[in-house]
Amino acid sequence: MELMATGSSEKLKDILPLYESFLKDLIYPIERECVYGSFKASLPKLKALRELAKEKGLFAPHLKKEEGGLGLSLSEFGRISEVLGKSPIGHYVFNCQAPDIGNMELMHQYASKELKEKYLKPLQQGEIRSCFAMTEPQHAGSNPVHLSTTAIKEGNEYVINGHKWFTSSADGASFTIVMAVTDPKNPNPYQRASMILVPLDNPGYRLIRNIPIMGDVGEDYMSHGEVMFHNCRVPVSNLIGEEGQGFVLAQERLGPGRIHHCMRWIGICERAIEMMCKRALSRELDPGKALAQQQTIQQWIAEAAAGVMASRLMVLATAQKIDQEGAKAAKEDISTIKFFVSDVLMKTLDKAIQVHGGLGITDDTLLSFWYRHERGARIYDGPDEVHKTVLAKRILKKFAE
Amino acid sequence: MELMATGSSEKLKDILPLYESFLKDLIYPIERECVYGSFKASLPKLKALRELAKEKGLFAPHLKKEEGGLGLSLSEFGRISEVLGKSPIGHYVFNCQAPDIGNMELMHQYASKELKEKYLKPLQQGEIRSCFAMTEPQHAGSNPVHLSTTAIKEGNEYVINGHKWFTSSADGASFTIVMAVTDPKNPNPYQRASMILVPLDNPGYRLIRNIPIMGDVGEDYMSHGEVMFHNCRVPVSNLIGEEGQGFVLAQERLGPGRIHHCMRWIGICERAIEMMCKRALSRELDPGKALAQQQTIQQWIAEAAAGVMASRLMVLATAQKIDQEGAKAAKEDISTIKFFVSDVLMKTLDKAIQVHGGLGITDDTLLSFWYRHERGARIYDGPDEVHKTVLAKRILKKFAE
Amino acid sequence: MELMATGSSEKLKDILPLYESFLKDLIYPIERECVYGSFKASLPKLKALRELAKEKGLFAPHLKKEEGGLGLSLSEFGRISEVLGKSPIGHYVFNCQAPDIGNMELMHQYASKELKEKYLKPLQQGEIRSCFAMTEPQHAGSNPVHLSTTAIKEGNEYVINGHKWFTSSADGASFTIVMAVTDPKNPNPYQRASMILVPLDNPGYRLIRNIPIMGDVGEDYMSHGEVMFHNCRVPVSNLIGEEGQGFVLAQERLGPGRIHHCMRWIGICERAIEMMCKRALSRELDPGKALAQQQTIQQWIAEAAAGVMASRLMVLATAQKIDQEGAKAAKEDISTIKFFVSDVLMKTLDKAIQVHGGLGITDDTLLSFWYRHERGARIYDGPDEVHKTVLAKRILKKFAE
Amino acid sequence: MELMATGSSEKLKDILPLYESFLKDLIYPIERECVYGSFKASLPKLKALRELAKEKGLFAPHLKKEEGGLGLSLSEFGRISEVLGKSPIGHYVFNCQAPDIGNMELMHQYASKELKEKYLKPLQQGEIRSCFAMTEPQHAGSNPVHLSTTAIKEGNEYVINGHKWFTSSADGASFTIVMAVTDPKNPNPYQRASMILVPLDNPGYRLIRNIPIMGDVGEDYMSHGEVMFHNCRVPVSNLIGEEGQGFVLAQERLGPGRIHHCMRWIGICERAIEMMCKRALSRELDPGKALAQQQTIQQWIAEAAAGVMASRLMVLATAQKIDQEGAKAAKEDISTIKFFVSDVLMKTLDKAIQVHGGLGITDDTLLSFWYRHERGARIYDGPDEVHKTVLAKRILKKFAE
Repeated sequence: MELMATGSSEKLKDILPLYESFLKDLIYPIERECVYGSFKASLPKLKALRELAKEKGLFAPHLKKEEGGLGLSLSEFGRISEVLGKSPIGHYVFNCQAPDIGNMELMHQYASKELKEKYLKPLQQGEIRSCFAMTEPQHAGSNPVHLSTTAIKEGNEYVINGHKWFTSSADGASFTIVMAVTDPKNPNPYQRASMILVPLDNPGYRLIRNIPIMGDVGEDYMSHGEVMFHNCRVPVSNLIGEEGQGFVLAQERLGPGRIHHCMRWIGICERAIEMMCKRALSRELDPGKALAQQQTIQQWIAEAAAGVMASRLMVLATAQKIDQEGAKAAKEDISTIKFFVSDVLMKTLDKAIQVHGGLGITDDTLLSFWYRHERGARIYDGPDEVHKTVLAKRILKKFAE
Repeated sequence: MELMATGSSEKLKDILPLYESFLKDLIYPIERECVYGSFKASLPKLKALRELAKEKGLFAPHLKKEEGGLGLSLSEFGRISEVLGKSPIGHYVFNCQAPDIGNMELMHQYASKELKEKYLKPLQQGEIRSCFAMTEPQHAGSNPVHLSTTAIKEGNEYVINGHKWFTSSADGASFTIVMAVTDPKNPNPYQRASMILVPLDNPGYRLIRNIPIMGDVGEDYMSHGEVMFHNCRVPVSNLIGEEGQGFVLAQERLGPGRIHHCMRWIGICERAIEMMCKRALSRELDPGKALAQQQTIQQWIAEAAAGVMASRLMVLATAQKIDQEGAKAAKEDISTIKFFVSDVLMKTLDKAIQVHGGLGITDDTLLSFWYRHERGARIYDGPDEVHKTVLAKRILKKFAE
Repeated sequence: MELMATGSSEKLKDILPLYESFLKDLIYPIERECVYGSFKASLPKLKALRELAKEKGLFAPHLKKEEGGLGLSLSEFGRISEVLGKSPIGHYVFNCQAPDIGNMELMHQYASKELKEKYLKPLQQGEIRSCFAMTEPQHAGSNPVHLSTTAIKEGNEYVINGHKWFTSSADGASFTIVMAVTDPKNPNPYQRASMILVPLDNPGYRLIRNIPIMGDVGEDYMSHGEVMFHNCRVPVSNLIGEEGQGFVLAQERLGPGRIHHCMRWIGICERAIEMMCKRALSRELDPGKALAQQQTIQQWIAEAAAGVMASRLMVLATAQKIDQEGAKAAKEDISTIKFFVSDVLMKTLDKAIQVHGGLGITDDTLLSFWYRHERGARIYDGPDEVHKTVLAKRILKKFAE
Repeated sequence: MELMATGSSEKLKDILPLYESFLKDLIYPIERECVYGSFKASLPKLKALRELAKEKGLFAPHLKKEEGGLGLSLSEFGRISEVLGKSPIGHYVFNCQAPDIGNMELMHQYASKELKEKYLKPLQQGEIRSCFAMTEPQHAGSNPVHLSTTAIKEGNEYVINGHKWFTSSADGASFTIVMAVTDPKNPNPYQRASMILVPLDNPGYRLIRNIPIMGDVGEDYMSHGEVMFHNCRVPVSNLIGEEGQGFVLAQERLGPGRIHHCMRWIGICERAIEMMCKRALSRELDPGKALAQQQTIQQWIAEAAAGVMASRLMVLATAQKIDQEGAKAAKEDISTIKFFVSDVLMKTLDKAIQVHGGLGITDDTLLSFWYRHERGARIYDGPDEVHKTVLAKRILKKFAE
């Protein structure tokens, strides 16, 4: 499937195979029990793998060298992220999983020294986990201007009230970053909200439930929380960035965040193609006549592979642009890959299931997990339709002049 | 959504609304707890509803009047089945659910008087449940000629050995009909197998597991069994039809069986469109600007509705053909609706989820249940690709002359 | 391809084969020279066929018996129209071609006795041709409220000024019916326009050009005119219906008009499937290995056939509804078939071309003609997107209550 | 639309704008009369433009500097080719049009010094044109092993007999390269044919007709010939490469040839998006409400732009691979872009037409020309289905080990 090597610097030539064999030897054997069984019960095994990753110098590849990472550019990390995406626990083992990676990036840039010391460091070292509370059940996530959660300043504290959901991985997390309205009367709706860090042992915070998603309630890291802030008080110094900067920071956070998703999705596609090919080669319709000889199956494999080739190049090009010009300059590219790659992903999974026949809909393979849990890919961080509109408006603008 | 009334006889004009209000008033309120909660725990409630259905004369609408049913043609029943399909427990409550309905039809035609008395009658009355053991994990289900399960005649008994899966609803069933090779050396591979009824308290039978399907292990009626026959002995008189007739009967059983699925899928589509419309009307992007005003959403609703209109007419026309000329004459029509309607179904569900945004991937609505459990629609009872080939070969034949 | 017989009354059983053999024996042999060669030069041959059709009692099947037709319902005529659609000159030979059939229907209902005598009669007998001038180059055809053409009453005359295009078959026509604004200040924009009959020898009328469409300038019946009205004076008695009734009549005219198109498109699909099958059977990839054995080709044939089955049933059901309840009651059904069948049509033609390989893009078969000239099917008489919105709004309305 | 700059070396930064303004200022104004009017009548104008191109040092950009070109790598040329593709006569003006560019590449590598002097040089300078005779009407082009054209060696001459079609641009060409069987008994079918240069004033050669393609008979460069070789005698020294090398050379010729097509198609897509945007911005549904505000139109623009971004990156990556590792190493990549980009092309054209409404199907814009003449893109040089199989087999092979 290694259709092209674009973006691979010399450095990666040595490193990528290390990740690949780590996955095949150590992660593939336990991945299914982690995602279909109890994630909590798997924590000791996962912790051991993380230790091993640290020993091998592979842990947290996205971080700077001085922070314990590999000091890679975003496009270099993209190649690793694709490999990790082949397993649903790949990123977790190397501590570069969403939503933590997004919070690390955000705090690295905007958190105070104090917050960095207290929260970012242990997060980077994999000692604690975090979450991000933005989406609200009462408002369409596709238009984030509308937020009901408020943070009212009282003395040295913010008093936060609000209802959030899709706060992924809240269960077991140590802190969340919450998006709340601090200046409701600001005429510019994009300057009304701020981001505030809330430790989750705060009595004003409550995890209402892990939302059952596509058949799984989930637990610990593998969960999506519905949470409530009720007179939740945190010191003003827990503000990330400045007051009113919520949307600016959200954009900063979500841009690379979408890239991370896309990289991971490509890894999933590659694994799905691998599974599809192996199944097609081993499954016989008649003795000696493997499924792989069916022209329709061949067409699907080719279409999936073309989708992967397109996706990888687009994502790497976008990562390169971010590396060189910043996330803002790549805004439309990010929108483009968000809807393009998620479409390739879901089509590839659908075909992989069809090739597997009955087996494809069972939980005996990973396809069922991805088919269910990645359906959200076309919804979260902005549904396809919104990203298409973003891109179209920018193109139309060029011709409107 | 009542785009057309084709196929509604006068009789149905009075009956359909009875089913509709039964569903809305009594089934909708409990459906989610039945499918997302414990099905077993819901059995008392479901039993009560069945009693009520009997009282109202609505139970088992597919059966002849003398068997306790409504004495409808297949195309008349189709209209009711569509209504029942709007809830995942609709058919169950009225005892016309797969796989029992298929077994009833089969036994009605081919079982001995004795078997009818002992097994068919209580099945028709909803006192017991049944299952159907055909697909084997080692062989591609799309080519049913290949079977490893054998039934060797020893004296007055068949000794059955084999491994089956996707024996739906095996958990809690009283008997299964098993497809087994009785004449392995017959030169005609289509005459090698027979159908044999096996009571499930037989010591030679074992339910290995309920196969986890798309996140759900399931239980009782809502399950898909993997089962084993090990020196399983049953009297020769448990044969359904004649020896070697297995494939003929399977066709007889699967033809109308596919029709039943198609009817149900149309009901699901209608419910999904209903949900999609209600969500689109109530969800606001900005105050006063409902999602329903978005042109893309409108296009999806229209495409889904057109798919339903097409599907309904095709299914009813096929049912009419079966009523008038028999299942064999309608073989290609059945193949056509099988792949056409399952495609409409999955596309409609996909769009309905997208309209619901984050909510669409949660188990807070039925969409997640159908998205997961109906993905099999394009696989079971013959994958799309096989049915398309069946249809194409028949058309090509006409022009080959 | 005769997947079902729905809608065929006894009457049709005898008649349909007469049309079929007329087409195969007399029309197929000359159709390509008519559409790829000079249509004008073919007129004598076409006239002879029309005479023959009259002799055989097959001419103008859509008309009442007293008008020289067969006195069929719309759904009965639909079956014939489908057969005629197999050839691009089928409808023309039997004088039931657009736009004349639409004008006949309109004038039958709304024209004065005098106009009927002078224009409708010879039109019904195929002695003259007509056209319909509605669309204007300056305004989006999808919103017909906006019209610049005016008809100012001066004494006993209307003075018409305006610019129209897609006035199909204007070249060689004897009269047009023009849509013009007679009451520009009416607060209801739907009551501003009227329909007026204009004989084309009027000095105020000019055929600017036959618009080149997809490579063909065309001529005579096979053309699409761009026309100009400059101080074009006609007697007030040339009004069709009443003043201000333009839109109402346009709806009356376009509803069945869309049905006629859909019927014809199904015929094209059938012919395309026939061609696709014959080519696939005769074309060999290797000696003894026909294209028809390729699974991908088989999938295409099946998908096309399913599309035809769906389309035919939907169109006949809609025709039946119009027969029974009138065109207004079937408004959404008409929108549905308009976008559904045109989609099936273009997909079927695309696949038929692909099966033909290089031959498919030449003018050596009819596929090129249809691929080019039916691309408009998704645009004229309302683009897909408009019809989908019409349907969606009606469905949403049901759930808004 | 300049979504990314990948592949642009410094050199191109200065050159690309020169081509862009040449196109806009000099080619756009005459392109429609060249392709819709008489190509022959346009030759003087085109010749003048070629002279100008030479003066400006922009002529034949694909050639080495010593041959009069710009000395670019394939991936650098790709960027220029994309720009030229925006006009249907872009490549012609700069003398890098198919099939001549393919013949130039082939002869550059494999022709004798003598043939180069006599034929290649004037071809490179745009003094003569050439064509390529490979496809035969009796054999499926997708399996080029089957050829009926033979070249029998008699003394110092080949005697060629055979029937070819899709010999593009034969009308007016000075020579063709013909693929003919020279060793019919070779057990390896891939070593039976050879390539031979035939001057077209040879009495044994005849242009039977310009095949009418999608409504256009065409003429001169803009034509597709059906040709006949009847005892056509040429000196043995007209052989290109070695005897039996026909297939090897065909692969060498077609690989980059497919790249050239893909580059051109991207240019077409960009122009189509440009047209689509401009139309959407200027066309009003209601006063003040432009088509561009319709969400569906926006979705189409975004999808088209994403397709272009994917296509460009894939084509440039493939060109780079050919530059670095040769055409053979990039075989599967070439297959991938062939089916991927042609799909993007046809979808983009289809949407652009839909946005234009009635205007889109007229010959008043270029969309009609491309819609018709690029439909072949999914067929010539190997239909989509064959390229998908090539790619799939290679991927499957990896997993078969």
